[in-house]
Amino acid sequence: MNGTVPDVMRAAYIDAVGPADAIRHGPLPVPPAGPTDVLVRVCAVAVNPVDTFVRSGAYATPLPLPFVVGRDLVGEVAHAGPGAAGFTPGQRVWCNSLGHAGRQGSFAEYAAVAADRLYAAPPGVDAEHLVAAAHPAASAWLALFRHGRLRAGETVYVGGGAGNVGGAAVALAARAGARVIATARAADAAAVRALGAAEVLDHASPDLAERARRAAPDGYDVHLDTSGHGELADAVESLAMGGRLVAMVGLGGGPAPLPVSRLYTRDASIVGFAISNATTADLAEAADGVVEALVDTPWRPRIADRLPLARAAEAHRRLEAGQVRGRLVLTPS
Amino acid sequence: MNGTVPDVMRAAYIDAVGPADAIRHGPLPVPPAGPTDVLVRVCAVAVNPVDTFVRSGAYATPLPLPFVVGRDLVGEVAHAGPGAAGFTPGQRVWCNSLGHAGRQGSFAEYAAVAADRLYAAPPGVDAEHLVAAAHPAASAWLALFRHGRLRAGETVYVGGGAGNVGGAAVALAARAGARVIATARAADAAAVRALGAAEVLDHASPDLAERARRAAPDGYDVHLDTSGHGELADAVESLAMGGRLVAMVGLGGGPAPLPVSRLYTRDASIVGFAISNATTADLAEAADGVVEALVDTPWRPRIADRLPLARAAEAHRRLEAGQVRGRLVLTPS
Repeated sequence: MNGTVPDVMRAAYIDAVGPADAIRHGPLPVPPAGPTDVLVRVCAVAVNPVDTFVRSGAYATPLPLPFVVGRDLVGEVAHAGPGAAGFTPGQRVWCNSLGHAGRQGSFAEYAAVAADRLYAAPPGVDAEHLVAAAHPAASAWLALFRHGRLRAGETVYVGGGAGNVGGAAVALAARAGARVIATARAADAAAVRALGAAEVLDHASPDLAERARRAAPDGYDVHLDTSGHGELADAVESLAMGGRLVAMVGLGGGPAPLPVSRLYTRDASIVGFAISNATTADLAEAADGVVEALVDTPWRPRIADRLPLARAAEAHRRLEAGQVRGRLVLTPS
Repeated sequence: MNGTVPDVMRAAYIDAVGPADAIRHGPLPVPPAGPTDVLVRVCAVAVNPVDTFVRSGAYATPLPLPFVVGRDLVGEVAHAGPGAAGFTPGQRVWCNSLGHAGRQGSFAEYAAVAADRLYAAPPGVDAEHLVAAAHPAASAWLALFRHGRLRAGETVYVGGGAGNVGGAAVALAARAGARVIATARAADAAAVRALGAAEVLDHASPDLAERARRAAPDGYDVHLDTSGHGELADAVESLAMGGRLVAMVGLGGGPAPLPVSRLYTRDASIVGFAISNATTADLAEAADGVVEALVDTPWRPRIADRLPLARAAEAHRRLEAGQVRGRLVLTPS
C-alpha cells in the first residue's frame, strides 16, 4: 500500500443480512489488493434493486462479513497490482460487478477490484452518468445482444422504453440498425422516439397487445419487456419466426401461462438471464456497450437523486419503497 | 426423362385438405424434375403425425393440388438433373422434407427431390429402417444439438426414452458423451439403458419430478420431453444454470404455467422448434445424425406395421386414432 492510501476508510456495510436499516456507515480497514487487483479510490456509486436483494438475503449469494454493499462504482486507480496490466495510478475506471458471489461491494471510499472486472472510463463522461449507466446499460446490452442475439435489420420490442434499462435498450438497438418499437407513458413518447424508436406505443393503451402486433406485422425478432407489466402470452404471440423473448424480470410475479405450441411452431425461444450470472468476458463486452451508449447515442441515465454515502441505508429504503424514478447516486464525502 | 421412367405413376394424394378418407390412391403424372432436382424411384415411405396435420389442414402450409401426401422416402435415383451434383442413377438415397411448404410429397412411385434435400443412403441399412428413422432421428438430432446445444459432459433429460424420437435422442446424446437420464415404462427400462441411458425413471412414478431432480442434483443442461406428458413447471425447475428446455411438442395442450423467475435467475431458456421450419443446411446436418444413429448406435426405430401404398388412407386413420406404437412404413407395390 503506498503512502497516499490510508489504513482505514468509511464504508456502508452490514454485519448480517437484514432490512435497509441494517446498513451501517462507519470505519472499516481499507481492503488489501492482490497481485491482479486494482485498489480503486471511489468517486461515485449507485444503488440497484438487486443490491437490496443481496442485503436482505432474498438473493442468496456468498457474503464475507462485515459486507460492504453495492455493485457499481466509478473511481480512480489508487494502486494497481503487478499483474493488473493496463491500469496506472490516477486513471479513471469503473466496475459493475462487485458486491455478490463472495466479492465485497463498492459503497466505500476504497474498493479492491479484480482487473478483469475493471474498465477504463471514457473521457468526457462524468462520473455520475457513468456510474448511473453501469448497471442498466450493461443489462440492456446483454439482453439485446448476448441473450437476444439481435442483429441489424431485425425488429425489437422494448417494453418500458423510458426506464433506464429500456432507454438504453432503445438507443443501443437503434444504433445497431434494428427497428425499435417501444412502450412508454404518453408524456415520455417524444423522448423515447429521440433515442431512436421507430414507434412508441402508449403503455396504458387498453389494446396495447393489438397495437404491438400491428406495429410489427411479421412479429418481433427480439422481445424485451423491462417494465415487468407485460403479459407473457401476448409477448410469445407477438414473436416472429425464430424470435427470442428475453426474460430478465418477473412478469407479474408468479407463474405465467405460456402458449407452448406457439413457441415451437415458430422456432421461438424464451431466454432468461440475470446479470449476476454473467461471466467476466460477457461483462467486458457489455462494458463496451455501456460506453457506446453514453458516447455514441443520445441516451443518458435518469438520475433521481444524489446522496452522500453516509445515507446508504436511506437510499436502500427509498428504492425498496418503489417511489424512485431513476437512479440514486451516492458519493463518499 | 429417360426411357426407364414411365409417364404415369401410382400415388396417394388429396384434391383438397380433409379427413384421412380424402386420400385417394391412383394414377398421376410422374413429376417433372428440374435441373437441380433428382427424380427418385420410391422404395419405402413412412407416416408422420405432421403428415396428418398437413392433410387435414390443421398445419397451414402451401399445397399444390392434387397434393401427394408424405414427407419421408427412401428410394433410388432414376434420373439426376445436370445441376444435381453427386447423384447418379441407381444410387440409394433418402429425404425427410417433402410434402409441405409448396413441395409435393413422397407417397408415390416417383418423387422429384431438390438435390439439397436428398442424402446418400448408408450401405448396410435397409430401406424400412432408414425411412422409419428419417423423421424421428432427425428431430432428436435437431432438438439435442441444433436447438439444445448439447455438449459432451452435460446432463440431458429425455422424457419418453422408449419412443422413436426419445430412443434416438438417448442413443445420440450418449454417443456424444452426455449423461442421459430418461423416462420410460418399467417394461422398457432395460432397452433404454441399452441405448446408453445412465438411469431410466419409471414414467408412471408418482414422484417422477423428485426422482428426476435426484438423478441430476446440479440440474439438467438440456431437457427434452418427447412424451407430451411432462409438466413445464417441473421441467423448468429441474434445469441447471444455463439449461435449455427444448419444446418440440405440446405439453398437455393449452398454455402451461411457466415459473419465469426460475428461468431468469438461472440464465435458463426454453427453445421451441418444429422440424418443418428447419433450413436445408440444418436438415443436412441432422441427416448425418440420422445415419450416425443407425450405423454407430444400437438404436433402431420401432416399426409398428408395413402396408402397401394403396392403404395410405388407412395408415393416416390408424395414426390419428392414436393406437399405433411405432412407425407405419408403406411401400409402392
